[in-house]
Amino acid sequence: MTNMLLKNCDVLSFAGGKAHIEFNHDIAIHGDSITAVEKTGTLREAEFEQCMDTSGLLAVPGFINTHAHVPMVLFRNLAEDVTVSEWFNDYIWPMESNLTEEDVYWGAQLGLAEMIENGITCVADHYFFMDEVAKAVEMAGTRANLVWAIFAHQGEEMLDKTIDFTKRWQGKADGRITTWLGPHAPYTTNPDYLKLCAQKAQKNGLGIHIHVSETAAQVDLSLKEFGITPVQQIRDCGILDVPSILAHVVDPRGEDFDILASHATGIAQAPKTYLKSGMGLAPIHQYMEYGIPFGLATDGAVSNNTLDIMEQMRLLALFGKYQKLDPTSMKLEDIADIAFHGSAKVMHLPGKIGELKPGMLADITLIRQDGLNSTPKANPLAFLIYCAKSNDVDTVLCNGKVLMQGRKLLTLDKARIQQEVQNRLQRLSQRLPAERIAFYPA
Amino acid sequence: MTNMLLKNCDVLSFAGGKAHIEFNHDIAIHGDSITAVEKTGTLREAEFEQCMDTSGLLAVPGFINTHAHVPMVLFRNLAEDVTVSEWFNDYIWPMESNLTEEDVYWGAQLGLAEMIENGITCVADHYFFMDEVAKAVEMAGTRANLVWAIFAHQGEEMLDKTIDFTKRWQGKADGRITTWLGPHAPYTTNPDYLKLCAQKAQKNGLGIHIHVSETAAQVDLSLKEFGITPVQQIRDCGILDVPSILAHVVDPRGEDFDILASHATGIAQAPKTYLKSGMGLAPIHQYMEYGIPFGLATDGAVSNNTLDIMEQMRLLALFGKYQKLDPTSMKLEDIADIAFHGSAKVMHLPGKIGELKPGMLADITLIRQDGLNSTPKANPLAFLIYCAKSNDVDTVLCNGKVLMQGRKLLTLDKARIQQEVQNRLQRLSQRLPAERIAFYPA
Repeated sequence: MTNMLLKNCDVLSFAGGKAHIEFNHDIAIHGDSITAVEKTGTLREAEFEQCMDTSGLLAVPGFINTHAHVPMVLFRNLAEDVTVSEWFNDYIWPMESNLTEEDVYWGAQLGLAEMIENGITCVADHYFFMDEVAKAVEMAGTRANLVWAIFAHQGEEMLDKTIDFTKRWQGKADGRITTWLGPHAPYTTNPDYLKLCAQKAQKNGLGIHIHVSETAAQVDLSLKEFGITPVQQIRDCGILDVPSILAHVVDPRGEDFDILASHATGIAQAPKTYLKSGMGLAPIHQYMEYGIPFGLATDGAVSNNTLDIMEQMRLLALFGKYQKLDPTSMKLEDIADIAFHGSAKVMHLPGKIGELKPGMLADITLIRQDGLNSTPKANPLAFLIYCAKSNDVDTVLCNGKVLMQGRKLLTLDKARIQQEVQNRLQRLSQRLPAERIAFYPA
Repeated sequence: MTNMLLKNCDVLSFAGGKAHIEFNHDIAIHGDSITAVEKTGTLREAEFEQCMDTSGLLAVPGFINTHAHVPMVLFRNLAEDVTVSEWFNDYIWPMESNLTEEDVYWGAQLGLAEMIENGITCVADHYFFMDEVAKAVEMAGTRANLVWAIFAHQGEEMLDKTIDFTKRWQGKADGRITTWLGPHAPYTTNPDYLKLCAQKAQKNGLGIHIHVSETAAQVDLSLKEFGITPVQQIRDCGILDVPSILAHVVDPRGEDFDILASHATGIAQAPKTYLKSGMGLAPIHQYMEYGIPFGLATDGAVSNNTLDIMEQMRLLALFGKYQKLDPTSMKLEDIADIAFHGSAKVMHLPGKIGELKPGMLADITLIRQDGLNSTPKANPLAFLIYCAKSNDVDTVLCNGKVLMQGRKLLTLDKARIQQEVQNRLQRLSQRLPAERIAFYPA
């Protein structure tokens, strides 16, 4: 069991409610948890089995990725400059029809390795062949909420198979893995199927992770077909009666805000995807006013190109200020609050992750502050939000275990993963129009 | 004189007009210029004095920063979450009143070091104590267009002093340095002063680098005070009769587009600054329609926080797509064209920089493609625009000389620079309200 002291780092603290930096602190870890955060010199080094010198590093809670399709790194950069419907129908869903379990296993490892390098310790993942993703998470040492994506045309049988998956992995890997259900979206299912998912989620004590209201066109289509928005539809179908993660919700309308505010749900925000795909920007200021939790997400690497959560954090800050044309909005401490507290709420893990204080899980990302981009060292919070790059992440711990130290990955074989993925590229990038896992209604 | 072969890199090429990647090519350099770019194996290694193995690296033209205040890295992260007028009046101009020549010398070195690490080989810099910046550029080995910023209240005497500066440094450092005039902006000068600057620029064969129409409020103020926009004002004052760089032009109106299109001018675009400062976004699609050249810029590190031009490139791509809500606009090749050709035009150096082909100056940035963010290697142009981080820059040449190799800076003393800048922080960050170098009209 871990019994470790991280010595003499600067710590992002929310003590007193507002994000700030505590300089020269030590972090004590026992087992999977943080047991103390104290000014350096307070805790006795001799009482710890392991000490890690973290002088000069900035300790932040492990970054949380509230919505991803981790294995999609397999298809990175293969669908550029296309519309959302072309992206699905002509690229992603034809390519995904090539996927085997083993592809997903290696893709998941690549994505997890990239996330660890980028300081991410927890992800909500939404994909296929999820046993393979779970195996990769178990090995990588990170935390994950996993759902197996399903479409209505796959029927109840497939839904039940994904429930079997949840049972195989719930609470596994020292509690790092949780499992939910993953109906893909209202536009790839139907009200009956969504109701079935909600009922079975209730019965099995599961939450639901689903894509909702990603574009104005989707909302218009829903209004035309059903007379209600996708948010209203998932409410009516009972999806919001279980804990949920809603991916994107870029275009909520009218009553949607009240619905979102009054249920145990949270919204994943991946601004790079929205900008790049011409989807517009979500009304995050209204989400804040309504008290609707939202957090950071990378989405998949075919829309977002990387799994770089710090890039999403910065984009959220920039577009938040832009949306109000007010540089005094979305202050440094607001962004830190969204990135860590907001994301923890979206994961339904507040009080467990997203803060470095006694009693929290020991998910910790340590960032170098000795580069030219942090010179002079004057305002580490501004450095974190506006200067730091994911490459500045030096060391990563999750659940009390060190996953990367000095940028060396300790749990995954980077070279092997890169080779395995590269070898699969030619086969996976083939697109046979008749072979498509689903259809996006344009 | 350099006589060097860069062996077996992938090369960003514009041959045929459209940006694409040529795999496994060699680049021959003689003196300050590129003399050949050929498929590896075509050129005879024995004919070169030096060979550099660049296998696996992506060669792109040295990035061009069309508008910066390089030494402002001294004040990095010291003015966050404030309005534009507070930024000037309560932070920047009070802090800048503390500056000495030696501060600028070390600040310029820090900024140039950061830019070299980020793959930037050429900058248009607009600041004070420009002899110090010129000395730093001479030492750093980069290319620069330098202007000494002046305000109307400093009078003709100061203008003449900046003309003396241009004469001291014009064409120096093996031709890497050019010098122009730098009236700060219409809002910190007046029509008579701008006319004087234009006349003296004409007489001395100099161009002008100036801030114009940065915010809607500035344009409104100009319309109220003078009945014309800032763009019309600089046209009327003769500024556009000499070669010019216009910083920002976020809010051009009506006739401004025709004026900009019909003069030898170009616009510097620093989207991070505009988003962060709530300035809005420039109408870059209209600039493209009108054929008005624009390029990438980092602005100063107090608004932009870093001198990371690749971040600006990505933001321009993302916000270009967002502005049209069209993911098929601002294609990869459009962004490459803006980043390199557009920026070279803004610098008034097309045909000399911004492309890797025989006859161009040997300003070359080589980027690693072996990271997780470039796995699988499938689409290097998408990697460049949407995945690569400035930390992936491996090696940088300017004017045929190697400035950084394997991320080791060869011309500047990084540790010394960081120490010198850190030592100055406390004194430079003091803000005495009575001490202000100029006033921003709110």
